[in-house]
Amino acid sequence: MKRVVVVGMGFGGVRAARELAGQGVEVVLVDRNNYHLFQPLLYQVATAGLEQESIAYPIRAMVRGLPRTRFILAEVTAIDLNGKTIETSSGPISYDYLVVGAGSVTNYFGNQELARHAFDLKRLADGEQLRNHVLTSFERAVAETDPEARKALMTFVIVGGGPTGVEFAGALIELVHFVLSKDYPELNAREARIMLVEAADRLLMAFPEKLSTYAVNKLRTMGVEVLFNRKVTSASATAVELDGVTTIATRTLFWSAGVCAAPLAALLGVEQGPGGRIPVQPDLSLKDHPEVFVIGDMAFLKQDGAALPMVAPVAMQMGIHVAKTILAREWGRPVQPFRYHDKGSMATIGRSAAVATTHGLNLRGYPAWLAWLLLHLYYLIGFRNRILVLLNWGWYYWFHERQVRLITDHEG
Amino acid sequence: MKRVVVVGMGFGGVRAARELAGQGVEVVLVDRNNYHLFQPLLYQVATAGLEQESIAYPIRAMVRGLPRTRFILAEVTAIDLNGKTIETSSGPISYDYLVVGAGSVTNYFGNQELARHAFDLKRLADGEQLRNHVLTSFERAVAETDPEARKALMTFVIVGGGPTGVEFAGALIELVHFVLSKDYPELNAREARIMLVEAADRLLMAFPEKLSTYAVNKLRTMGVEVLFNRKVTSASATAVELDGVTTIATRTLFWSAGVCAAPLAALLGVEQGPGGRIPVQPDLSLKDHPEVFVIGDMAFLKQDGAALPMVAPVAMQMGIHVAKTILAREWGRPVQPFRYHDKGSMATIGRSAAVATTHGLNLRGYPAWLAWLLLHLYYLIGFRNRILVLLNWGWYYWFHERQVRLITDHEG
Repeated sequence: MKRVVVVGMGFGGVRAARELAGQGVEVVLVDRNNYHLFQPLLYQVATAGLEQESIAYPIRAMVRGLPRTRFILAEVTAIDLNGKTIETSSGPISYDYLVVGAGSVTNYFGNQELARHAFDLKRLADGEQLRNHVLTSFERAVAETDPEARKALMTFVIVGGGPTGVEFAGALIELVHFVLSKDYPELNAREARIMLVEAADRLLMAFPEKLSTYAVNKLRTMGVEVLFNRKVTSASATAVELDGVTTIATRTLFWSAGVCAAPLAALLGVEQGPGGRIPVQPDLSLKDHPEVFVIGDMAFLKQDGAALPMVAPVAMQMGIHVAKTILAREWGRPVQPFRYHDKGSMATIGRSAAVATTHGLNLRGYPAWLAWLLLHLYYLIGFRNRILVLLNWGWYYWFHERQVRLITDHEG
Repeated sequence: MKRVVVVGMGFGGVRAARELAGQGVEVVLVDRNNYHLFQPLLYQVATAGLEQESIAYPIRAMVRGLPRTRFILAEVTAIDLNGKTIETSSGPISYDYLVVGAGSVTNYFGNQELARHAFDLKRLADGEQLRNHVLTSFERAVAETDPEARKALMTFVIVGGGPTGVEFAGALIELVHFVLSKDYPELNAREARIMLVEAADRLLMAFPEKLSTYAVNKLRTMGVEVLFNRKVTSASATAVELDGVTTIATRTLFWSAGVCAAPLAALLGVEQGPGGRIPVQPDLSLKDHPEVFVIGDMAFLKQDGAALPMVAPVAMQMGIHVAKTILAREWGRPVQPFRYHDKGSMATIGRSAAVATTHGLNLRGYPAWLAWLLLHLYYLIGFRNRILVLLNWGWYYWFHERQVRLITDHEG
């Protein structure tokens, strides 16, 4: 029986595994974590809205229901394409087919200073770490007697006007105005500044312009300062600099202005494309290695002249496609080139406010928010997790309360 | 207006705060964490049954509803009894009345080796750390080819037959047999050994003997090896030694064989009693300092010839009593000596199995388990937390499933 090894249990890897299981191949899943992370909700962990356990699902719980499938918790250390073997921290694993989808990491474009001082949201621990930092900043602000230092503690600079930046900015200002303002009567919550810095001249580039306009107006109404055509050029522990001229005193820089392929991509030993991504053939396989596939954020493929975006729906469709391709080859059936079907984009801004665009239909406000909510619940893995998330959302919606405001680790 | 400073937001501190608020005094609460921890359920975090967020409650959420009460997140560094001031990491705080209830820490009786290698369950982070370790041990066991080493990874030695040891042993073996046996089909779950080592000749000393017998029989039926009259005398990273003779290869030593007063007790500068506890007057105040009170695990007080136990009900009653004493003094009313009303004890062993003793009534099995469950839900702070815990318990009860089996941090 042929063995398919899937590296990376993100959106793509999970779909590939489900599609392959029980279809006459042996499936081996490899990840360095023992859970699948629902990354799109990580910003809600960072803003005390969700506990981290509700957006992670144990891979072994999933594997139980998949025939001829096993999971290996391991870090991949080398890939031998000619020997058809991967080396891992748990020993070597040989394969007949290899599917690599290890996702992306934050791209600081080589700026070590930014990398050192900025927070980001990619791994599960990032959410809790950022939440601890935000809450600790308010605790320190209470104890701070110097007004300038207090203001810096309550200033949050968010870089990048994509969905992550917009969602985090909206969730953070709601946390401050609805929740922390009541927790810290000693502080004036209106003193808190949340700045969203975007290098281009609009937010949410992937959306139609009128939805971008709605988003910026909504954020500004909520109190977020949105800055266009500005770049954060350097950072220290106590300040960031805009365009090398304006200095903003802050203790919190959040970076969502770029991603690149995870370092694992380099192990494939092939020439990497833009952002370190791996150029793939139309069927998502490697040139000269039709038995090796790359999916998700790691794969670089152009469609209709533009590179496919690094988003979850692309990864999911790629995972399913690769599984079907492998099975088609095994069964001697013809394989199809991959084609991404863009079902649209959505981003939430705040309570009852979101934007969504799908098949030429543009939604905003409450309908978009409801659609966002239902779709995220649908894609979340695990029934218990859905209930937990729904419970937390309901609590916030009706009581304006986010209860996960715990400082679970102390900053030095 | 007189200022009452309460140090420590455990069971005692929280009750004192609630009792004092709005009674004509200013209340200042101090804790180094921003949450109240419901410690009795920490072992369920360690055994993947509960997420840590469901057993912690933000102190500021509680303080919102308490008039003339504020919270300061700070570590206490010194106590000046004559100057009526405490020094903290957030600056000095003067008081008219001081209530100190900073709880207890694990007592390794000076054995540094044990302290270095053993796990315990006192702080919130301990639960997640132990869960990560248990799950990582199983992951390593899967990858381990040497049968002896694999057996050591699946051997868990629990020291101390009190409620914590019994509850953890029961919850751990159920995790292994009901949940992990399905997660790790590669392993033989029956190979897992869970040993409970007690220095005396029975478990649960605080209970009537027939309940102790029920507990040991139940644990043995579940597969726990219970050893009496044995002591763990030394430990390394790979083994523990019993009575200096028998060596057991294990990677997991859990210590619940003793507690002593938290180091903060020494800051009071008075002579400490057994286990570092602070001897108090019948009204729980310090000798020569009637304005300073010590409550909970930190207080040493004899009643009917025996020292009061270091358990949550004592702390809660002391917290309420001290608050009433302070208010009585302010109002010029007579104060009463503290008297602990023992309402009984309970400990859960497993699914539908517990022991409870109250006012001469002894319960075991399902009725005791139901009583345990309802009482713990009742004392848990926060309605949302109660729903979360109930949801997790229901899930486990009906589906034999514990979903928080996440390895959220990697061991070196």
